[in-house]
Amino acid sequence: MTKFNFEVQKVDGYARKGLIKTKRGDIDTPAFMPIATQGAIKFTPIEFIEQIGFDLILSNTYHLLLKPGLDRLKRADGISDYMCWKKPLLTDSGGFQVMSLSKLRKISEEGVKFQSHIDGTSYFLTPENVIDYQNIIKSDMQMVLDECIKYPENYTNVKKAMELSLRWAERSRNYYLKKKNEIYGAQFGIIHGGVHEDLREVSINETTQFDFEGYALGGLAVGEGHKKMIEVVNYTAPQLPENKIRYLMGVGRPIDIVEAVYRGVDIFDCVIPTREGRHGLAYIGNKSINLRNSKFEDDYSPLDEKSEYFVSSKYSKSYLNHLLKIKDPLGSMLISLHNLNFYYNLMQNMRKAIDRGIFEDFRAEFLRN
Amino acid sequence: MTKFNFEVQKVDGYARKGLIKTKRGDIDTPAFMPIATQGAIKFTPIEFIEQIGFDLILSNTYHLLLKPGLDRLKRADGISDYMCWKKPLLTDSGGFQVMSLSKLRKISEEGVKFQSHIDGTSYFLTPENVIDYQNIIKSDMQMVLDECIKYPENYTNVKKAMELSLRWAERSRNYYLKKKNEIYGAQFGIIHGGVHEDLREVSINETTQFDFEGYALGGLAVGEGHKKMIEVVNYTAPQLPENKIRYLMGVGRPIDIVEAVYRGVDIFDCVIPTREGRHGLAYIGNKSINLRNSKFEDDYSPLDEKSEYFVSSKYSKSYLNHLLKIKDPLGSMLISLHNLNFYYNLMQNMRKAIDRGIFEDFRAEFLRN
Repeated sequence: MTKFNFEVQKVDGYARKGLIKTKRGDIDTPAFMPIATQGAIKFTPIEFIEQIGFDLILSNTYHLLLKPGLDRLKRADGISDYMCWKKPLLTDSGGFQVMSLSKLRKISEEGVKFQSHIDGTSYFLTPENVIDYQNIIKSDMQMVLDECIKYPENYTNVKKAMELSLRWAERSRNYYLKKKNEIYGAQFGIIHGGVHEDLREVSINETTQFDFEGYALGGLAVGEGHKKMIEVVNYTAPQLPENKIRYLMGVGRPIDIVEAVYRGVDIFDCVIPTREGRHGLAYIGNKSINLRNSKFEDDYSPLDEKSEYFVSSKYSKSYLNHLLKIKDPLGSMLISLHNLNFYYNLMQNMRKAIDRGIFEDFRAEFLRN
Repeated sequence: MTKFNFEVQKVDGYARKGLIKTKRGDIDTPAFMPIATQGAIKFTPIEFIEQIGFDLILSNTYHLLLKPGLDRLKRADGISDYMCWKKPLLTDSGGFQVMSLSKLRKISEEGVKFQSHIDGTSYFLTPENVIDYQNIIKSDMQMVLDECIKYPENYTNVKKAMELSLRWAERSRNYYLKKKNEIYGAQFGIIHGGVHEDLREVSINETTQFDFEGYALGGLAVGEGHKKMIEVVNYTAPQLPENKIRYLMGVGRPIDIVEAVYRGVDIFDCVIPTREGRHGLAYIGNKSINLRNSKFEDDYSPLDEKSEYFVSSKYSKSYLNHLLKIKDPLGSMLISLHNLNFYYNLMQNMRKAIDRGIFEDFRAEFLRN
């Protein structure tokens, strides 16, 4: 790992505007990452993602292991070049699939055994090998292996999972530091402890000992709801080292993101803008509309009259409704792009507001709407 | 119908380079039309179609009737504006569906009754109402209603269908001329007669009496094969009026197109580049490759190293194979675009060769490969 740097450029309350420098380019924070689970932003040409202005995308180690697989990724020199994405990329370790594919995995102290949901093949992930795997993927920011736990779950199990994640964090950092010269990207630790402040505190104190390049808040956006999630962010984010990147995993809706930035989070990823976009849901101003709804059949106004983005200002709601009805993936693609542009603008507006020292007003205005 | 003009600018043997002028812009011929059956080039943003350079696309009256339907097309002021396509558009009348949906239709002297393949609703197409429908669609070039007949079919039935198409052509032209001031686009007659020279001759002689703005060769590319099709084109095209557009419907593979241009055809449409592209088949140089084939899993070379088109020179065969394997429509889209660009270049190269008076050499070189 050579070039990697994070600098907080401006603080406004707890909110921060920052700059991440990586080998593949810089990222202004707060930033949102579109998701390329398996080496593609679903349905969407990467040229349009570049054009919107995104600096960072996310991919998933577990899904990439299955397809295209490590051998191809090795020969392709990493997922970014393979998918023709020229900027930085962050990868999740597979820890989220510990929860989302819970029926297909078995956890031990050593690691997690998965049975592929595609063909039944077994994959054994350990804190150590996911570092090597993410290095083959050529991730610019890689996550440690963790046990992401479902919500609700009893205190004892949340505590156990947090403690296992801590032991794995130690193994991860040791292995990473030992191999540091061979490793391409930075390494992030992940804070666990569910919705329990005492457990989160233990996790923060222990995890930050290892001096990772960044810290993720894990185990959120798993069903606990906006209020509980923000409570956790509220007492967790400010305790994390000020000079390190703070990443709220899998979050979220615009309001979740604004509230988390307000509490000092720097980067986000979420399937919402693309998954909901594929299903016809578009974010407009302070609401979302479902373009499958028959009331849009005869609405010839542009998707978003106030937007300057070509997709939003050019295509009518009626036409997008038509594309969804005839099941042409073009409709899903256009609405995904509209939503991603919406998210990009939201992040940009937050960066500007922090820069100008008016984030408090920005948030108040946002909440009023 | 106001502004519409066709001019043959250069003749080289039987091959012609021409220019069509319409209200929505000019079209250099020989030209190939990408197909937007139901108001979308399947899976593909129209911005990329513009970017390749296409001047003309095709849509289908029958499919548009079903969805989005005439009411919406009326309110949207035609399909082109609806789909954000700024250039000219040609529409088939529904005659092809007389053949392709033969189990769902009943022909009478008056017209064709269809039962929607989607919801069973009945649609009755007549030579007259398809003119009105195509006018609502705001087609720049509309086709008369015809009875497209399958291959093989016995002589008597081919003759009967050709004669019905002739009677419909007369009704079509009469109705069109009567309503000329209200009609947006030009009208094309369609020559029938299957693979029978005597029938084709009758059809040409009679159809051209009506002085349409253009003439299509119908009932080809329906199973008769390359050799028989080119035989028909060979004796049909040169008999058509020199100053009128000649359109070979539903054709075809690159070799079909080169051979038809050689015999004096001006415009073409075909699902091949997009349909085959969606299924992973890419045209490269003088051959096509199937990117689903496992031999491309580890081929990291660009789809087409010799191409300057961004899709072709940027994305590797291995990555496209991966996208097809994970069933992301992005793969289908990228390969469709590659193929459409291939077709566009083929047409452009033919236009240049005719312009330089070396089309004979161009064709010989093409056939050698």
